Amino acid sequence: MRFVSYLHDGAETLGVAVGDRVVPTAALSADLPTTMAGLIATPDAVAAVERLAAEVPSGTGTPIIELSLLAPLPRPGNIVCIGQNYREHAEEQDKEAPAEPAIFLKHTASVTNPNATIAWDPAYATQVDYEAELAVVIGRTARNVTEADALSHVFGYTCLNDVTARDLQFGDLQWARGKSLDTFCPMGPVLVTPDEIGDPQSLTVKCLLNGTVVQEASTAVMYHSVARIIAHCSRAFTLRPGDVIATGTPGGVGIFRDPPLLLGDGDEVVVEIEKIGRLSNRCHTRKA
Amino acid sequence: MRFVSYLHDGAETLGVAVGDRVVPTAALSADLPTTMAGLIATPDAVAAVERLAAEVPSGTGTPIIELSLLAPLPRPGNIVCIGQNYREHAEEQDKEAPAEPAIFLKHTASVTNPNATIAWDPAYATQVDYEAELAVVIGRTARNVTEADALSHVFGYTCLNDVTARDLQFGDLQWARGKSLDTFCPMGPVLVTPDEIGDPQSLTVKCLLNGTVVQEASTAVMYHSVARIIAHCSRAFTLRPGDVIATGTPGGVGIFRDPPLLLGDGDEVVVEIEKIGRLSNRCHTRKA
Repeated sequence: MRFVSYLHDGAETLGVAVGDRVVPTAALSADLPTTMAGLIATPDAVAAVERLAAEVPSGTGTPIIELSLLAPLPRPGNIVCIGQNYREHAEEQDKEAPAEPAIFLKHTASVTNPNATIAWDPAYATQVDYEAELAVVIGRTARNVTEADALSHVFGYTCLNDVTARDLQFGDLQWARGKSLDTFCPMGPVLVTPDEIGDPQSLTVKCLLNGTVVQEASTAVMYHSVARIIAHCSRAFTLRPGDVIATGTPGGVGIFRDPPLLLGDGDEVVVEIEKIGRLSNRCHTRKA
Repeated sequence: MRFVSYLHDGAETLGVAVGDRVVPTAALSADLPTTMAGLIATPDAVAAVERLAAEVPSGTGTPIIELSLLAPLPRPGNIVCIGQNYREHAEEQDKEAPAEPAIFLKHTASVTNPNATIAWDPAYATQVDYEAELAVVIGRTARNVTEADALSHVFGYTCLNDVTARDLQFGDLQWARGKSLDTFCPMGPVLVTPDEIGDPQSLTVKCLLNGTVVQEASTAVMYHSVARIIAHCSRAFTLRPGDVIATGTPGGVGIFRDPPLLLGDGDEVVVEIEKIGRLSNRCHTRKA
């Protein structure tokens, strides 16, 4: 199943993809959750949506391209990120593979929508960079789970751009501020349930800047698999339904290129992940 | 006004202190919010509570000591923390005063209640330390606010213990994991509204370990005031109602003492802040 969150009459609405169209869950049954957070809190509803969506006549619903998409989960509980999880990205920083997944956090106000602008004041942040990432949305509480059991706690997968102001990231004591500017966490366009993804370690993750591929790797080369990341996090803190984990970015980020390739006003940055889709955002610099 | 969250018949309940007793808001009027998050979302309700509480006969309600207290806001949106914000704490690490407030984040699952145990597996974390902090709960959305306006965005103040596994904090790439273990963010016992606090830069913050004062400083010696911290954060990301900011810890933490003074099984750690109260928690080590 492929779910989207979008605005309808100004309100957050949950839709399910039927072919290349989107049908609001409320049109399938008045008993279904009408937001992604509601769906995550009602796991049985996924099967009901699947059953009802299968009965929908073809041509029902609205083409996804006509919707005002929101991030699939506009208000995650926490955004947990994993650093240096792809070999080429660790190597471009002259870093060894971390023995365990390296955790950091983004402030949740950074979340923004597909097709929304990534916006910053160029007097405030001067080195803004892309990081294409496979993101996991937690569906079931995970505390001290094993790797073998970890993926059963996943509600779905989406694309995430861990946009980063490198000047703030490296100038501050910790990375949190440079990673947390408003609009610095685009997510979407869809949330895809695990049954459609299959093995999360066999997906191609790409980033395209103005149409040129600048990052590309298979999740097969992650140092730490999605399952290991979930198990590792869950030994420290309880992962709750609605938490998001960004699983690291491939090599090719802008700051470590020679010369550096940083984001500027008008640039279009796309995160594209196999079996999920394309998350596109345009950059806009403006005085705060 | 002094508000508490507590369990009543297994449900989160909002109460207001009337003398040394607590009256549930629902007993004042059926129209009032019944949780702290609800109260924060309904700012006009604070004045209504104040008016109604003033009419309550003395002796009404339950002594606070008989309640099963919760963290005042059991589910904050984000927990933003400020590092090295007291001179003695920066000096004990041989650090210069940071030119700007130094931001990091705790995962929100770390929140725990007054009188609850701070629990960890001693095979997982070996150097667990206390950090007494004045915490601010945001009441009104703050984006790019000035220092002059910043305090008008505060809903209230409470005590917070930024418990930290030093081995994980310093062994990891970033501090997030070592700061985010479940139970590593005790908060409470009460939330005090700004009118009762007055100037937040004239409060004594103490930490007591088994009855001995191990940290003590006035918020007057913070490098960056509460107002400046809020203004600074709000330039990077939108502070939303329900976000918590921990404003830094005084000198005297355990890890930088000679010899180090770390938390162990059975230890009682108290954060005491003038005009707020005493947040007491006992440590418990156990195999995960």
